[in-house]
Amino acid sequence: MQGQAAAAFSENLIDDVLAGRRRSISRAMSLAETTGSAGRELAAAIYGHTGRAHVVGLTGVPGSGKSTMVRVLAQNFRRTGRRVGIVAVDPSSPFSGGAILGDRIRMLELAGDPGVFIRSMATRGALGGLARASLDVVDVFDAAGFDIVLIETVGVGQDEVDIVQAAHTVVVVSAPGLGDEIQAIKAGVLEIADIHVVSKCDRPEASETVVDLKTMLKLGESGRHGVGEAAGWSVPVLATSAQNREGMEELVAAIDGHRTYLDRSGEIADRRRRIAEMRILKTAEEIVRARILGRSAGMMEALVGRVAAGRVDPYSAALGLVDQNTKPTD
Amino acid sequence: MQGQAAAAFSENLIDDVLAGRRRSISRAMSLAETTGSAGRELAAAIYGHTGRAHVVGLTGVPGSGKSTMVRVLAQNFRRTGRRVGIVAVDPSSPFSGGAILGDRIRMLELAGDPGVFIRSMATRGALGGLARASLDVVDVFDAAGFDIVLIETVGVGQDEVDIVQAAHTVVVVSAPGLGDEIQAIKAGVLEIADIHVVSKCDRPEASETVVDLKTMLKLGESGRHGVGEAAGWSVPVLATSAQNREGMEELVAAIDGHRTYLDRSGEIADRRRRIAEMRILKTAEEIVRARILGRSAGMMEALVGRVAAGRVDPYSAALGLVDQNTKPTD
Repeated sequence: MQGQAAAAFSENLIDDVLAGRRRSISRAMSLAETTGSAGRELAAAIYGHTGRAHVVGLTGVPGSGKSTMVRVLAQNFRRTGRRVGIVAVDPSSPFSGGAILGDRIRMLELAGDPGVFIRSMATRGALGGLARASLDVVDVFDAAGFDIVLIETVGVGQDEVDIVQAAHTVVVVSAPGLGDEIQAIKAGVLEIADIHVVSKCDRPEASETVVDLKTMLKLGESGRHGVGEAAGWSVPVLATSAQNREGMEELVAAIDGHRTYLDRSGEIADRRRRIAEMRILKTAEEIVRARILGRSAGMMEALVGRVAAGRVDPYSAALGLVDQNTKPTD
Repeated sequence: MQGQAAAAFSENLIDDVLAGRRRSISRAMSLAETTGSAGRELAAAIYGHTGRAHVVGLTGVPGSGKSTMVRVLAQNFRRTGRRVGIVAVDPSSPFSGGAILGDRIRMLELAGDPGVFIRSMATRGALGGLARASLDVVDVFDAAGFDIVLIETVGVGQDEVDIVQAAHTVVVVSAPGLGDEIQAIKAGVLEIADIHVVSKCDRPEASETVVDLKTMLKLGESGRHGVGEAAGWSVPVLATSAQNREGMEELVAAIDGHRTYLDRSGEIADRRRRIAEMRILKTAEEIVRARILGRSAGMMEALVGRVAAGRVDPYSAALGLVDQNTKPTD
């Protein structure tokens, strides 16, 4: 459907990504993050080489301990001989740059391991498209032969929830004693978890948090049906302490178990469809946005002025732009 | 630009909104939240009656105390005789339903006042469009004669940051001792603040947080330029305790002062343009999404299957959908 003849990247780049060359992986990711057609065509070409990696999304509010969890989890997967890619979409993550010094130093343990590759996403892009870009970056990891891709997102924000839902296995991390966090989870993230993890289980309030989550899961069962639960997956609640390496092997086992479940039950096909739909829609939105801002910058500028002055409403302006500026010309 | 003859709402509804009838305001907001054409046409008609309200965005992570801040701030604005609309886009807000019992009870103080109207937004819409819908709801408040519209959003998430940036005045709330929160602010929310508020200033760590924020602002001045700062607005850092009503009058004065500054400096025009651009783009994206999911559901379903199976990439699929399904037919 898409002409690859005009690709603005060398064919070698894809070969080098497939061969797992780190510099090429970085370059491909940088290109995939852009909104230009070269980036889109690269992502399109990469897509054909994906489908092997197990994509695991980890989410939790700042302070939930999910960054430490990601780091220790990566080390545990490494011990089973698997290569691990990390996509950090959380501005408070040490992988993304927002972290106290201790976190950064501990992160270096990972950085020295050639079987681990960390990519942090800028979460304040001028043109949006964060979900689209993050998942194209996941594809580069997949194509480059990484066995496990961990996506770290903060547990609030629509785009962030969309991103984590594009994983095969969703892990929701809760810290004991964070009352507000439980509230936030109640309000939307609870039902997307395939696995619940309570971090910092050395704290006395941890067992209470475990009980709270289990109670919520039971209440949820009678009312609505979670994605995993309806099809026969029983969402576990695991108590862990990444710092003391407690419960981490159980978490690896639960993640692997969920993947086995997806494959055996055939639910993996539903997940792939859900992910495909979301990615198509996000990409379509980005195409429209880029065309409006690119091709019809003049028309857009005039419309912005008229909307700002209250002479045209945003809906009529948007409708005109969509109708007149989404026709293909190239 | 848009035919209003086919509007699926009565002309009375708009008159009743303009007259400030509460039931009609609720109905108009519910309609504005939908993605159908009736909702869009209502929003388009409402837009012509807006432009008077002062829209104030408050953002901060869960636990920052911004919900209490919103409540007390509303009461303070009421004391100056102004009518206050509240749009809660935070799943952990007591206004949105995620809150401990005490918060809910304290919220009732507001609910009994006819000069206050609270609207909470569902943050997990199946079709997205949260920013578009939130700002259409703000318009309904504006058209209905509310003087102040407070938008409460959580300080993370791309959509949430977009929403709060659509306010005339952006207030960023930080709690003392929330190390991670400061990190999150550093990573993206710092530069959008017109006013910084440190909550819970009765805590000993509060003065440290004030100093931290002031230091960051100074560092920011030398490097990049914030929206307000570049044009001559000096971003204040206010220590408050909403619980003890400390610093709340200063906050009201700062918000009013910022509005005066915007008007006198002419910067209000730039803000209106920035808001208009964002709203046009968000609405355009929603139109494309609705058309793809509505008109070409069959084509979409087939494409989802092919993308899920790895036979087509998301970019080519999206491109085909945009090109073939954005032509106007109605």
